[in-house]
Amino acid sequence: MAHEIKLVTEAELRRTVHLDLEVIDCVEEAFAKLATGKVVMPPVLSMALPEANAEVDVKTAYVPGLEGFALKVSPGFFNNPSLGLPSLNGLMVLLSSTTGLVDAVFLDNGYLTDVRTAAAGAVSARHLARQDVDTIGILGTGVQAKLQLIAAAKVRPAARALIWGRDGDKAGLLAAEMKTTLGIDVAACPEPADLVAQSQLVITTTPARDPVLSADWLHPGLHITAMGSDQEDKNELDPKILAVADAIICDRISQCEKMGELRSALETGLLAGTGNVRELGDVISGASAGRQSDDDITVCDLTGTGVQDTAIATLALGKVRRANAGTTVLA
Amino acid sequence: MAHEIKLVTEAELRRTVHLDLEVIDCVEEAFAKLATGKVVMPPVLSMALPEANAEVDVKTAYVPGLEGFALKVSPGFFNNPSLGLPSLNGLMVLLSSTTGLVDAVFLDNGYLTDVRTAAAGAVSARHLARQDVDTIGILGTGVQAKLQLIAAAKVRPAARALIWGRDGDKAGLLAAEMKTTLGIDVAACPEPADLVAQSQLVITTTPARDPVLSADWLHPGLHITAMGSDQEDKNELDPKILAVADAIICDRISQCEKMGELRSALETGLLAGTGNVRELGDVISGASAGRQSDDDITVCDLTGTGVQDTAIATLALGKVRRANAGTTVLA
Repeated sequence: MAHEIKLVTEAELRRTVHLDLEVIDCVEEAFAKLATGKVVMPPVLSMALPEANAEVDVKTAYVPGLEGFALKVSPGFFNNPSLGLPSLNGLMVLLSSTTGLVDAVFLDNGYLTDVRTAAAGAVSARHLARQDVDTIGILGTGVQAKLQLIAAAKVRPAARALIWGRDGDKAGLLAAEMKTTLGIDVAACPEPADLVAQSQLVITTTPARDPVLSADWLHPGLHITAMGSDQEDKNELDPKILAVADAIICDRISQCEKMGELRSALETGLLAGTGNVRELGDVISGASAGRQSDDDITVCDLTGTGVQDTAIATLALGKVRRANAGTTVLA
Repeated sequence: MAHEIKLVTEAELRRTVHLDLEVIDCVEEAFAKLATGKVVMPPVLSMALPEANAEVDVKTAYVPGLEGFALKVSPGFFNNPSLGLPSLNGLMVLLSSTTGLVDAVFLDNGYLTDVRTAAAGAVSARHLARQDVDTIGILGTGVQAKLQLIAAAKVRPAARALIWGRDGDKAGLLAAEMKTTLGIDVAACPEPADLVAQSQLVITTTPARDPVLSADWLHPGLHITAMGSDQEDKNELDPKILAVADAIICDRISQCEKMGELRSALETGLLAGTGNVRELGDVISGASAGRQSDDDITVCDLTGTGVQDTAIATLALGKVRRANAGTTVLA
């Protein structure tokens, strides 16, 4: 029996879903629901394709109370840039929570993932960074460097931002763009140590396989969100940082143990176990403490979760319907 | 950068892809490739949703040499019949093997799964049943009962088929329909023991949680394909059958150990281990023996694999393109 499916392209989504407080609140709520223990979120299906220099991840989460649940396919094909194509692509499917029928297909090429990933950074900043963030520091110059800064500035309206990248020219270009976008002082910073010293909130957004942020640079009051690691060979933070932090908060502990900063810290033995590690949803709900004083050093380890996908896909479908956007297919 | 995606509905697929020898050969070839060890096929992502009386399975497989690889979402929502909807639905996505870009979305509501599942049954019959099958016996009266019989008759042109179901009326209706479709003698059989006694090829297609086929009914020359079990609580065959069979062939041993007839046989201890169990791909390629004499009793345990999905999705895209069917979306 044919039913209606909403089909939405990347261009249509870019016109309809924006990285704003509504999206940030929606992702925050999803994390809070994750903390209730009623969400069903299986481990990531991860398929390495060495022959194609690629990997494919599939994420999903069923959130009771939401009309639908998303299933997201994220292919990373790392030879693509040589073909003039982005490495990361993919799509999201939204299925009805009551019938399993396909409600929507978002041919977003990873756009919704970009947005929900940045939104999680803002949720982390909102709950873990000091209230008085004067300077936001960004390590990295890619899409997430940009989006994480935009998202963080919405919850911590800083006077200034600093950007560091291995390629100083890229950092300069992004700084100039962000200065215009955000209307605040944004500058490239050639030394990551300087950037960290001047920032109260630092977000690492790199695909680093060796740490880009040293424990020697820590200072009281600093919050770090590390969102670059999402594979078992990635590592942005000196593992010592997790050993000395006053609070370590993960999006999902079981996932960060496998592919986040938590993995590196545990593997080196510098962090003895996960006994003191908490999840972001528990901090949001108040079940766990996050930052307890302005001098605390806090770390948030984000690997990206299926609840974020379900949250943004549900929000996106509502917005698309209200905007009468997308195409309705009978299938 | 927008690229072309072929979008195909169930109705369009039903007009374009049929359960024929081309499909059977294509699935056979996929199993043969699986045997080469070069296929990347991660374990099924399986999500149980007790709150919705539902489960969702995700399967995928990357087959070197094929232009694309499929990712299939199979939701089973078992309250659907009370809403007048089928329990099983879903879609398949075909991604480019070289770029990961989405090449096609098949909004098939499970149609391609139905076809590739039946095709695997035919592959099993072709390689494991005696050449001279006079009677094909089917246990079950659902969609697969019908499709498995149609598929089996293409590789073992029997003079007769027998159908048993818990609901004798349904068995009678299906028998009448199949008699017309196949042009052979097809009858409902009220006693499964009688059905097995008269058949050289028996296919079990039920969602049984307790065996529907007793070891007492075995006879020399019988081949059984059990395709109903695809969850860890399903079981169609008396576990003794696997203990006494001359050959046990699985679509994928690692998967059948978890959710197939192999699981039940191992759990009861009647089968001591998988040392003598072989995979269908190895039988196709000749690396492993299947049936070695006309008197052998052989069993094939099918749980459904990602390579079948990749095979049929690839075939379907070619057929859709040649038929100029479906809709091309720029996304």
